Amino acid sequence: MAFDANAVKELRARTGAGMMDCKNALAECGDIERAVDYLREKGLAKAAKKASRNAAQGIIFSYIHTNGKIGVLLELNCETDFVAKTDEFQSLGHEICMQIAAANPQYINVEDVPAEDVEREREIYRKQALEEGKPANIVDRIADGKISAFYQDNCLMEQNYIRDPKVKIKDLVIAEIAKMGENIVARRMARFAIEA
Amino acid sequence: MAFDANAVKELRARTGAGMMDCKNALAECGDIERAVDYLREKGLAKAAKKASRNAAQGIIFSYIHTNGKIGVLLELNCETDFVAKTDEFQSLGHEICMQIAAANPQYINVEDVPAEDVEREREIYRKQALEEGKPANIVDRIADGKISAFYQDNCLMEQNYIRDPKVKIKDLVIAEIAKMGENIVARRMARFAIEA
Repeated sequence: MAFDANAVKELRARTGAGMMDCKNALAECGDIERAVDYLREKGLAKAAKKASRNAAQGIIFSYIHTNGKIGVLLELNCETDFVAKTDEFQSLGHEICMQIAAANPQYINVEDVPAEDVEREREIYRKQALEEGKPANIVDRIADGKISAFYQDNCLMEQNYIRDPKVKIKDLVIAEIAKMGENIVARRMARFAIEA
Repeated sequence: MAFDANAVKELRARTGAGMMDCKNALAECGDIERAVDYLREKGLAKAAKKASRNAAQGIIFSYIHTNGKIGVLLELNCETDFVAKTDEFQSLGHEICMQIAAANPQYINVEDVPAEDVEREREIYRKQALEEGKPANIVDRIADGKISAFYQDNCLMEQNYIRDPKVKIKDLVIAEIAKMGENIVARRMARFAIEA
């Protein structure tokens, strides 16, 4: 079985095993997941922990709101450490943390919302509209509109910036990309709140 | 169909709907997940966001390691805000964050490791032992030993404290519980690292 260079590269990155070992493991196992287990069983893989490696540069930002009842962690990536250290980048990271603390997005991008969650929301909106006595022929259009609003409420990049509601968070990021000449990506976020 | 008071209580907490509405929804739908959707469709539920409510007190801690390349977020719960504000509690939260940054636990408690992950690890250890020529009748015992080591490496509460390897993190927490006279629980953690 032939594998492309990307599969070999990913397997090397995840296991730390040598090129030939990775090719053999892929040929033996047929897919990357099983090849990882195979290499570990054979003692050729260095460690499972390297699996989470990420090639990008960037900074981890945190923000703890008053009294420690809300906390945010954000990974903001860019292409070089030079950009990561600029005041501009630091300031963008801080603003995005404040946004997450205040507006509690559930996802970073529209694409991060699982398809079944979208369908579930859509079904709820359709039934709500029918309950409210809306005619069946416009129920789908109403549901579409509510899905857009759902994205705007729940996806960080679609949210209106808390300091300037005419601007979306993705607009802030795009402006920064234009200024810096480097791609900038909010990769992961976590928000914990104590709600006693 | 009869539901116990806990199901009604959870449904109320998640939807904000009234007692009778919750009982009816459970009778109608048969389980909590569907009852949540049902109440939202009926417009009786206040909001999906309340679903994540947590009755405990506590503090959200964060720690950003040198240069912003590693960041940690931790929710540490206790029973009263009085305890949350003590220096002792603040110090425990800080130490646990440092531990997470340095030792990168994948889970908080042994019980948080999914059963299939344990089985997968055990299978790898068994095959490693067989590869190494260990006799079949002691392979399971070797695998058990390695599972214990896996817990100690990967579960925060089982890890040796970075500042004093004779002590486990759970020992630190238990000592604090004894001192404060309140239950203390590390509820959630996140650790992001930039690995360029």
